[in-house]
Amino acid sequence: MMLRELLLGKALKTDEDQGEKIGPFAGVPILGLDALSSAAYGPEAVLTVLLPLGVAGLSYVTGLTAITLGLLLLLYVSYRQTIDAYPNGGGAYTVTKENFGTSTSLLAAAALALDYILNVAVAISAGVGALVSLAPDLLPHTLPLCLGILLLLTLINLRGVRASGLVFMLPTYVFVLCLSAVLAIGAFHALVSGGRPIPVRPLPVPQATLGTASFWLLGRAFASGCSAMTGVEAVSNGVPLFREPQSSNAKRTLGIIIAVLFAFLAGIAILCRVYGVTATVPAKQGYRSVLSLLTESVVGRGTFYYVTLSASLAVLSLSANTSFAGFPRLCRVLAADKFLPEPLMHRGRRLTFSHGIFVLAALSGLLLVIFGGVTDALIPLFAIGALLAFTASQAGMVMHWRRQGSATRSLVLNAAGALATGVTAGVVLISKFTEGAWLTVALIGGMYVIFRQIRAHYDFVARVTTGQSLLDIRPAPRPIVVLPIRRWDAVGVKALNFAFGLSPDIFVVQVITEEGDVDDLSSRWEELVGKPAQLLGLAAPKLVVLHSAYRELLAPLLAYLKQLASAEPDRPVAVIVPELVERRWYQYFLHGQTASLLKTLLLFRGMPQLVIVNTPWYLKDWLPERHRLFRRLARPRPSAT
Amino acid sequence: MMLRELLLGKALKTDEDQGEKIGPFAGVPILGLDALSSAAYGPEAVLTVLLPLGVAGLSYVTGLTAITLGLLLLLYVSYRQTIDAYPNGGGAYTVTKENFGTSTSLLAAAALALDYILNVAVAISAGVGALVSLAPDLLPHTLPLCLGILLLLTLINLRGVRASGLVFMLPTYVFVLCLSAVLAIGAFHALVSGGRPIPVRPLPVPQATLGTASFWLLGRAFASGCSAMTGVEAVSNGVPLFREPQSSNAKRTLGIIIAVLFAFLAGIAILCRVYGVTATVPAKQGYRSVLSLLTESVVGRGTFYYVTLSASLAVLSLSANTSFAGFPRLCRVLAADKFLPEPLMHRGRRLTFSHGIFVLAALSGLLLVIFGGVTDALIPLFAIGALLAFTASQAGMVMHWRRQGSATRSLVLNAAGALATGVTAGVVLISKFTEGAWLTVALIGGMYVIFRQIRAHYDFVARVTTGQSLLDIRPAPRPIVVLPIRRWDAVGVKALNFAFGLSPDIFVVQVITEEGDVDDLSSRWEELVGKPAQLLGLAAPKLVVLHSAYRELLAPLLAYLKQLASAEPDRPVAVIVPELVERRWYQYFLHGQTASLLKTLLLFRGMPQLVIVNTPWYLKDWLPERHRLFRRLARPRPSAT
Repeated sequence: MMLRELLLGKALKTDEDQGEKIGPFAGVPILGLDALSSAAYGPEAVLTVLLPLGVAGLSYVTGLTAITLGLLLLLYVSYRQTIDAYPNGGGAYTVTKENFGTSTSLLAAAALALDYILNVAVAISAGVGALVSLAPDLLPHTLPLCLGILLLLTLINLRGVRASGLVFMLPTYVFVLCLSAVLAIGAFHALVSGGRPIPVRPLPVPQATLGTASFWLLGRAFASGCSAMTGVEAVSNGVPLFREPQSSNAKRTLGIIIAVLFAFLAGIAILCRVYGVTATVPAKQGYRSVLSLLTESVVGRGTFYYVTLSASLAVLSLSANTSFAGFPRLCRVLAADKFLPEPLMHRGRRLTFSHGIFVLAALSGLLLVIFGGVTDALIPLFAIGALLAFTASQAGMVMHWRRQGSATRSLVLNAAGALATGVTAGVVLISKFTEGAWLTVALIGGMYVIFRQIRAHYDFVARVTTGQSLLDIRPAPRPIVVLPIRRWDAVGVKALNFAFGLSPDIFVVQVITEEGDVDDLSSRWEELVGKPAQLLGLAAPKLVVLHSAYRELLAPLLAYLKQLASAEPDRPVAVIVPELVERRWYQYFLHGQTASLLKTLLLFRGMPQLVIVNTPWYLKDWLPERHRLFRRLARPRPSAT
Repeated sequence: MMLRELLLGKALKTDEDQGEKIGPFAGVPILGLDALSSAAYGPEAVLTVLLPLGVAGLSYVTGLTAITLGLLLLLYVSYRQTIDAYPNGGGAYTVTKENFGTSTSLLAAAALALDYILNVAVAISAGVGALVSLAPDLLPHTLPLCLGILLLLTLINLRGVRASGLVFMLPTYVFVLCLSAVLAIGAFHALVSGGRPIPVRPLPVPQATLGTASFWLLGRAFASGCSAMTGVEAVSNGVPLFREPQSSNAKRTLGIIIAVLFAFLAGIAILCRVYGVTATVPAKQGYRSVLSLLTESVVGRGTFYYVTLSASLAVLSLSANTSFAGFPRLCRVLAADKFLPEPLMHRGRRLTFSHGIFVLAALSGLLLVIFGGVTDALIPLFAIGALLAFTASQAGMVMHWRRQGSATRSLVLNAAGALATGVTAGVVLISKFTEGAWLTVALIGGMYVIFRQIRAHYDFVARVTTGQSLLDIRPAPRPIVVLPIRRWDAVGVKALNFAFGLSPDIFVVQVITEEGDVDDLSSRWEELVGKPAQLLGLAAPKLVVLHSAYRELLAPLLAYLKQLASAEPDRPVAVIVPELVERRWYQYFLHGQTASLLKTLLLFRGMPQLVIVNTPWYLKDWLPERHRLFRRLARPRPSAT
């Protein structure tokens, strides 16, 4: 209890909701880390694909980046419109559901959900991978480091939205400031040197040119760079997180994120070109990240270099947080429409959708464990889901404007956005299909089927549990009461005394498993129960002694119940299970788990007439007695045993 | 179900008991393997301790063995008397309990139980160790091999007594025949050569003499050889396993075992001396077991050598089975006296004490896992327990004869037995004390305390549950009924209809966790329940709507129950828990586990007044409906959702 409060903070009341709302300043770290961290890996991804071209590859970087930046701007304008049109949160699911119907929206939701899960695994392992390449001693601890960060993110997110904003603020803004400074200094040197700045430290020798620029290669480079665009949708999805005025706070946050990312991508591309920074071969001796080479070229290897690199590593790992903001809310809307289990709808003690957070942590943790913390194999699967969802969402906006019959400009903008992301999605899908993108498609299909199945099940249950004829008030007849007891003690007598109030038809069942095992109550029944009942004017309960040929306790009882129930199919059969409740868990080894087992068996193998009545008998109420007895037994006397 | 039958055979009726009884021919493998396998490791243990003496050590072997053999004969005569005096099984516990009282008998039982557990681990790992020394490729698989043999033994013993007799017969008798043949051939060569036989293959060069024979060294060698005597008690413990005439069948079995063991120990000791077979240093390069060196010296390395060695390995591993015969029966008598949990008293589906078998397998498996399958460290702990138990048991027999006031010859024999085993136990305990025997003493003490605690708990429970005033027939007053429901559906209505029969005071509780989450039933209550109840002349159930500030479902309900219960402390409070029973386990993810959680919470945190009524509602009864619906949903139409 105390530990939980320490880790997660005290529970929040539902009406404390407003205190958890955020503004743009916290919104950028919470919703923007995925986008901003793209600056660290987007240009790197492009340059790595261009490696076979050697230094010549650099001439394509600025062009490819320009296309990406154009796309980014288009997405910005387009998503501003979505925020305005869907002020209650316009995720791809919501927008497509409203404009295309359920099937399309489920596919979009599946694509997005998959991308959220992959993003957590890929982002954390990218951050840890970069850390390990700086400190190779940590290599054997890759998986524990990944899982540690995952645990940290999970805890922070369980603490609530505001908490995560506060925690991520420092690394985010340090990263933004440092990288801005590096780019500004670099730009200054470039201008002063007339476009030929000299790196502060010599760069590694670039790869020899091995091939020429094919359309295919450039396409793949562009597709790799597009991973920079995932995370843009997070803001439109998270509009309800913001405080009033919600829409403008959300738009302002989106604006800041896009502006910073735009500057970073542009700056990195240009400076790489003028400084001549090319990628190094990943996972080979001498590998250095593009960002570290560029920083080093501009400012050398001082404290500033290490601060910048550390901040970028932190941001890379923490960019997984965007999924923690988005995934639970996506699950929530799906659960509200009964396509996912109901518990995902409920907010936990800190007003977060804690079940969604657990599911995300579990699934991405599983990926990390399976891949041992090195998720390179997952990168081709990544980004496609997001791009497909963007396309669906923008296309949905086009339909939205068409139905509204006005705002041609908005329609054109969203259509351009849809077209651009659609084409990009196509390029990425084709260029990475054999590398694993086919699996994305298969998984999306599989998730679609699961969503449908869940809904079908809920529909079925709702249908059969709300059939009008079943909702009639129609008191059940007096039940037949069956009370299994093992021996004559207070636990059973309490149950019997309760049974008298239930029905005059009481069958007390004693199962004898081996002769001499327990006292057969037959001979004493009249004296124990018959006469006292008669005195009180009660119908005497009947004793049924069952002899179990195979020494099983429950099987003969179940058979007897079936027989009793089929003889009177219209009366409920109430089985009373007397149970001694111990004080400590280990004390349960001292008794067979007969009561628990019986309750479980009755519940799962029972007939519709069955009602299970559990009468607990608490040992803790006899504690003073126990203390007296224990003092006596602490001095064992031979005569006592 | 089918798998269980395949592995364990079909269930046996209690009256099929007689079919499971055995004669001496099956009795030797079942109860004698521990003793017989001593031939394989007893002489080896003596010779290993004598290693520092080099070849000179051999001159002490026959003398030390002679003492052991004398002890063995004494034990034989002594235990024959125990079998006669306790025809229902005269284990150390039974004999000491009757003659010394509870405390001594519990110590004897603890010592014996510990030895049984250690025997399983040590025997299996000795067999596997010997196998691995023959086939070093198997070394990395030591633990899996050990656990595999343990699993096999467990399964065979779960199949029943007869099954284990049949399975172990072949290796036992092959071992007896082969070793007899080797000893006979060796004796023949020794006689023919006038006491100077030439080994068929040259023996390894013996260790150089490093010291002289001290009393201490000889004592330790004798103590090591005494491990050959464990397992003698098994027969007297297992008298009930035999068919009529039980006592004489048991005595005949004991006689065969002792005779064979006697011949083996004597033969091995003499032949080692005349052939000049000394031990090699264990766990060092070039290690060979004494038995393999002797066999090789006598018959060379042909097929016969390998058959003999294989049989001795098998017998070594399978000697763990003696524990499987003894431990569960020991647990059974302890459980019957309430010093161990009650389930250990009951016979399973094949008439074995299956819980005892599980406990033995679990504890010895744990030892094997902890020690990685190499239990050399446990050997010093071993044998002491058995010797202590023997001493206690024989001393008990002395008391038995004294009380009977006759049979001086019997008294003297048992007294001699007690003295001999007592002195032996003392020698072993002292010589091995610092090597680990102190742990044996500590563990026996610990087990004694646990036995006492368990008995104290049972006594306490028996006392408080059979207090006369609690056994009165005194019908409980009509309960207050509390029915928590989430929404208005057939599951809840079934529960409500049952509630009408319980009491006129029904409180239906709806907990609202978040506004808009579920329909507040207040506005419809009169129409849904009030009016129909009035028409039927029933008291209308009251609706209580609780708003949960922290979105918890159960906490407000529990608080409400506490308040209700304290207002009327003399009436039972029956909480009805309606529950939808799904058809498949994974479908439970689709609902919160509210019903199970509520039942558990109520059971463990409830007040004495509490009764838990569980009304299951079975989805399986609506299966045809489901099939119809599913066919419809398999072709999704946009309008349907």
